[in-house]
This record gives sequence, structure tokens and C-alpha cells, in this order.
Amino acid sequence: MTVLPTNRTFAEQLDAADPLAAFRDRFVRADESLIYLDGNSLGPLPRATQARISEVVGAEWGAGLVRSWSHWVGLAAEVGDLLGEHLVGAAPGQVLVSDSTTVNLFKLASAALDAALDAQPGRSAIVTDDDNFPTDRYVLQGIAAQRDCELRTIHTDPDQGLSEQALLAALDSEVALVSLSHVAYRSGALADLARITQLIHDAGALALWDLCHSVGAVPVELDAAGADLAIGCTYKYLNAGPGAPAFLYVRSDLQRDLRQPVWGWFSQQDQFMMGPRYQPVPGIERFATGTPQIIGTVAVQEGARLLAQAGIERLRAKSVALTSYLIQLADEWLAPHGFSLASPRADARRGGHVTLHHPAAWQINRALIATGVIGDYRTPDRLRLCPVPITTRFADVWDALDKLRQIAAAKAYQDVPAEITRVT
Amino acid sequence: MTVLPTNRTFAEQLDAADPLAAFRDRFVRADESLIYLDGNSLGPLPRATQARISEVVGAEWGAGLVRSWSHWVGLAAEVGDLLGEHLVGAAPGQVLVSDSTTVNLFKLASAALDAALDAQPGRSAIVTDDDNFPTDRYVLQGIAAQRDCELRTIHTDPDQGLSEQALLAALDSEVALVSLSHVAYRSGALADLARITQLIHDAGALALWDLCHSVGAVPVELDAAGADLAIGCTYKYLNAGPGAPAFLYVRSDLQRDLRQPVWGWFSQQDQFMMGPRYQPVPGIERFATGTPQIIGTVAVQEGARLLAQAGIERLRAKSVALTSYLIQLADEWLAPHGFSLASPRADARRGGHVTLHHPAAWQINRALIATGVIGDYRTPDRLRLCPVPITTRFADVWDALDKLRQIAAAKAYQDVPAEITRVT
Repeated sequence: MTVLPTNRTFAEQLDAADPLAAFRDRFVRADESLIYLDGNSLGPLPRATQARISEVVGAEWGAGLVRSWSHWVGLAAEVGDLLGEHLVGAAPGQVLVSDSTTVNLFKLASAALDAALDAQPGRSAIVTDDDNFPTDRYVLQGIAAQRDCELRTIHTDPDQGLSEQALLAALDSEVALVSLSHVAYRSGALADLARITQLIHDAGALALWDLCHSVGAVPVELDAAGADLAIGCTYKYLNAGPGAPAFLYVRSDLQRDLRQPVWGWFSQQDQFMMGPRYQPVPGIERFATGTPQIIGTVAVQEGARLLAQAGIERLRAKSVALTSYLIQLADEWLAPHGFSLASPRADARRGGHVTLHHPAAWQINRALIATGVIGDYRTPDRLRLCPVPITTRFADVWDALDKLRQIAAAKAYQDVPAEITRVT
Repeated sequence: MTVLPTNRTFAEQLDAADPLAAFRDRFVRADESLIYLDGNSLGPLPRATQARISEVVGAEWGAGLVRSWSHWVGLAAEVGDLLGEHLVGAAPGQVLVSDSTTVNLFKLASAALDAALDAQPGRSAIVTDDDNFPTDRYVLQGIAAQRDCELRTIHTDPDQGLSEQALLAALDSEVALVSLSHVAYRSGALADLARITQLIHDAGALALWDLCHSVGAVPVELDAAGADLAIGCTYKYLNAGPGAPAFLYVRSDLQRDLRQPVWGWFSQQDQFMMGPRYQPVPGIERFATGTPQIIGTVAVQEGARLLAQAGIERLRAKSVALTSYLIQLADEWLAPHGFSLASPRADARRGGHVTLHHPAAWQINRALIATGVIGDYRTPDRLRLCPVPITTRFADVWDALDKLRQIAAAKAYQDVPAEITRVT
């Protein structure tokens, strides 16, 4: 790793040379002094999205009224294709904007398991890992419990990510489905999507990837990796707003054999004929459920367009530069105060965020927020910092780490109550 | 039924005496000449909602960023209580805004059936009716298919609504759950919620009510009726916008015994501790799933506040006056042209809309829209008209029916292609 100068001027020079610098102005900034390192919890508001929501509310809903359904009705698949083309490496007809991450995971994991059970009754186990995002683990627990199937939860190092050895040890002829996160929500560890998919396929199982912490931050090539199923959210790097709809991916050749459990009318052939029997459409919309949220879907469209303009390869390059710079400053400035890295050190094994251990992480995070730098806390002793590349300057990273070292040096966090009251 | 004068002046007099007349100005009206009789598909945009969405997007998301989750996190239950107090007759802690109608029906019907199967393995049948809304029928088909349970679909007269005799004939000791609509989506037939709930309870089954076409149009008293479960949408009479989140109701004493199938993190105890095992919260939020859509939820809040100000009893009184007036004009003006009533004639048996049969209903509806009156078509020969009481004037009903009689008299619809291309 190249050692970079640690003076602020150098950070300013990096910003001056940043080809994506202008994208910062495409976002609403209410407080110029705020340093926002939590775009992987809730991404900031793009100006285009603010204008588009206003247009959809006023003109499409307010003036167009029910007539606007004539173009809203295909929007979820249209925006899905946009994600497929620019962000997740999927040919058209395989991505759909729909429901929440939780509901999409439920639909796809249920469909995959049921198809496996139909094909081979002995193939009934699900594999996941103990550092997977909570909703993933809970949803899989529910699916396994309902069908009385086995859920194998492999241990993953919460700082370094998935171990291939642990995965291989869990894979056998009883495994129907493996559900993993592409980027780990705590450590930011980045899994090798193609390689691990291959290991899963070698064992005869299907791979379901959670892309919540990777989509929009790292290039994702679902088709090229031979992935089977994926889900992801849009309110993090995609900047689509609080509770915007999630997306799902089902590889074309699998679609016909999978039947999701929620037989809603937006997945029905000849939907508006409202016939007596459920007969799902042949394409990706067979994984839709009820009436889609339109305001959220257009926000996904605007968010995806913005990232497409910036280009995922350029975003990734800047993200790696920002996070490796952050790690270098943390090594130099924070390690002496009891911080240690809780993310993979190798750039190729890290997603868009960096996590640090400190015994007083909760209190330090509260103290940091009070200085105008927003990161977040993760259990039990982690401070998670995400320099989202589309809006974050190298100088922001410098300033944030500088504030952290001041807080740490002065032990300015000791007055913050240690009781964890809320995590955002 | 009192026979009212059929001159337009009389309609204007009714409007002049309307205590709710001023509420019309609380909504965006982009086209003063448009007569909108489809608020039961997509309700119009309240001005307060437009302003509130702008505020939530700009100030709460744009400026507040992730910090706004501190108040967003409890919003779904808070708005649920608002619906409970003013619109569905439920004490606090029993209503939650969540997901879509389809997903909520899936969750509650699955939970009820699974609880019944656990308690008494022989009680495994679901009952619904063949005029229930398509997504309800499809979701129940899916639930029954997955568990290999029986789904009994009773026949309901598509003009007159549910027959108690048909229901009673389907109820026996094998029935676990009965899922019905309070107001039928085609005919507008209004079921007696308390009486039918009692019949269902007498058979030892649970009652799950779909309130999509009644909430905000008809007083609903879930607690008083002893209802077990209910779901409903918010983009019709509640005016919360396209794809706004739906709601669900679970009676307090049932909550602990029901476990819904989608074990998402927003239903987890100590959600942000992200512990290893799913342990649902004891209250209504155990029926939540993933991250809720915030923009849609505040739109539900604004919509519910507006209806609460108008008062559901006053809204219902005006709605009955509007629909009975519409029926009288249809009898006099349209029956000679081949129209006939496809809704119950008795006010007490009708919800907020009126449906008419005509062999050329599809073409007539298209011709009507071309004159600036929006109603909608329903299979196979139905024209559905909804004079939503919070915005519709008696003169609007007069004008709409006048246009219809002109279209019918001139056979002005004969040039419209007969092929059904889309239904909104």
C-alpha cells in the first residue's frame, strides 16, 4: 500500500483531481458543515429525485389521477432493467423493483426451497452465515421453521468476512439454497461473488445473494457470475429514500420453475381481467405481489440514473481510494488511542465502508455526531464509517478522522451515557 | 325512497346545503372541468399531503438524513392508531401501517391458518367468495396450495353481495378462517360486519376482513364487531397516493398466539441489537416485516387526518345521499338506454360506489372519459361510478349522468374499439 501524506492539503489535492467531484452538487446539502459518512444506512437526497417526486406527486398523481396507472404499471420492471444494465450486471427481464428487501428475500428463498423440495425431497437445507444481516437470518429462520427444514448457520469472522472453508464444510447433497451477503453489513467484507457462486453450484445448490451493501458501491456482475437469485435495497448507495422499494433478481432460465408464495394480483396474467384462478405471468413480474409504491419506484429510477452517469467503475475506484485513505489515517491517528481495524485491509476484499473497533464505540459515535460527523455504531464495539464516493471528499475523510483523534485524545466521549439507546 | 327533483338546480341546492362542501378545496384540482368518479381506485391528492411529502423529502430526508429514523421508526404504529381511532373502530395497539394489501393478507391469513393447524389439525379449511377481490382470492389459493389445505370458494351474487345462506352452508368444524371483503369491489355491496363475524365465530373460525373498499367510506367498527383480523388499502378513500402502504388489524388478544411467516427485522425485539435469534415483539409490530416506506406512511397520516376532520359519519351520510341520487338519475335517464343497476338498491347494503350494467360498458366508459368524466370499467359489462363524498358535488353526479344519457342516446360509444385494452 502506498503511504500517502497525512496533511490536509494533500486531501484537498485529491479532491481537486477527483473526476467525480461535481456529482456532490447533484445532492441536496442543507448543512454545508455536515460530514455524512452514513450513506450506507440512508443515502442523501439527489436534487433530481426531489424534483421528480414533486412532479410525480403534483402532475402524475394530482393531475393525472388514475389515468397515470397506464404508465406506472410497467415501471417496476422498467426500473429493474435499468438496475440490471448499469449496476448489477443483468440482462433485461431479470430484475424487478418490488416490496422490501425482507419480503423479497422471503419470496425468493421460499420459492427456491420449495422448488428444491419438489425436485429432490432430500435436498432441504438452507445455509447462511452468522454475520449475515439480521433480517436475512430471521427470514431464513422463519422459512426453515415453517417447512421443518434445517438452517445451517456457518460462522463468519465478523471483521474478515466469509471463510470458504467454513462454507465448503457446510455444503453437501442436502443443501438446497445458500443465502449470503455480497458485502457484510458490519465489516464491509466483500465476497467473491463468482467464485462462491461456483462453489455453491458445485454442491448442487442455488445461490441467493443479498446486495444491500454492495449495489451502487461495487461492480456487481450477476449474469457473469452465474448467480441464481439476488435481492437488494435502494435506500443506501442508490439514494432512493427511506423505505424505497427493494429489488430482486431471478436468472431467466430459473423463472419458470420458481413460484413465489405470495400470489398477488400484480403477478397475474391478464391482471385486469381478474379471472378466477391464479396464473402467474411467465417473466420476472411473476415475483411481484401487490400494488407497487410509485413514488419510491421513481426515486429508485432517479438514483440509478445518477449512479449510471457517474459510472460504477469510477465510483468503485474513488471508493477504494477513500476507504484506503481512511484506513491509513486511522492506523496513524487512531490506533494509538485504542482503535483497531474491523474490516479487511486488502482493497479487493472490502466494499464501500470501513469499520473500526473501540471499546467505547457507542459513546465515541455519539460524541462524533455532536461535532457534525455522522457515522454509525454497530454491535458490540464497532464504529462504521462510509465515505460514499458520489458525495464524499477526501477532505471530509481527513476532517472526520481529525475530529475522531481529537475526541479520542481528549477522551471527550466519557460524558456520553454508555447505555445504547438507539442505533441509526 | 324519496323521489328527488331531477333538474340541475336541485343538485346545486343540495351542494349549497352540504356541510362538507368546503373539503373539496382541500384537494389539488388541476382541471376544474374534470369530474372524478374513480376515487375508489386512486383517491385524489390532498393539498396537505402534497405539502407534507415535500417537507418529508426536503427537510426530513434531505436535511435530517439518517437522524430522522429516530421519529420515523414508530410512525407505522402511530398512524395505525390514528386509523384505529377515526376510521376502523380499533383501540390503540391493534392497527399497523405496513407493506401492501396483498402482503398483509398473506401474513395474516398464513398466521391464522398456521395457528389453527397447530391447535386443531382437523381445522384446516379457508372460506372465501368468488366475488372477492382478485388478489385476495389468489393469495388464499397460494396459502391453501402450499399447505395442501382446502379453499372453499362460495358463490356470491356479483350485484347483490354475499349470501348468508351460502356462507352458512360452507361453515363447518373444518373451517379455520373466513376471508371476505366488507364492501365488494364490483357491486359495492356492503356486508354486515358484526353479524357475519358472529356467524363465523359461531362456527369456531376466525374472520379476516378486507376493508379496501370500505375504509374511509363507511363507518367500520372492528372492535365492536369482535372482528379478528383485517387488512385494507390507503390509496382509495384514504387518498394516500399510488402504492401507499396498506394497513392491518389484529385483535389484541390474538396477537400473542399469531406468528406471521415473514420474520423481518422490523418485528424483532431489540431490533438494533441485531441478535442471533428471531424473537418477535409482543405488540402489533410483530406483524411488521422490513423497512417501511416513510413517504407513503406520512401520506396515510395526512389522508386519515383529513377524513377525521370531515368525520366518517358525515362522510357516510353524504355518500349515501350521493349514491342514492345517482341511482335515481340512472333509473330515470339510463334504464331506457339499456343500463341496469349492478349494486344493491337499499342504502344500508351499499358502500360508496354504484355499478351499472350495460352490454357496451367498456366502450361507454371510454366515451365517458373522453367527455371529462372518469369512472371505471369492471368485468364483464359493468360501469363503476364512485362519487367520493369528500370531493364530489351533487352537481357532478348530475353532470356525469347527463353526459352518460347523451352518450347512450346518441350511441356515441359505437366508434370506440370494443376490445378491452386496459382497465384502470
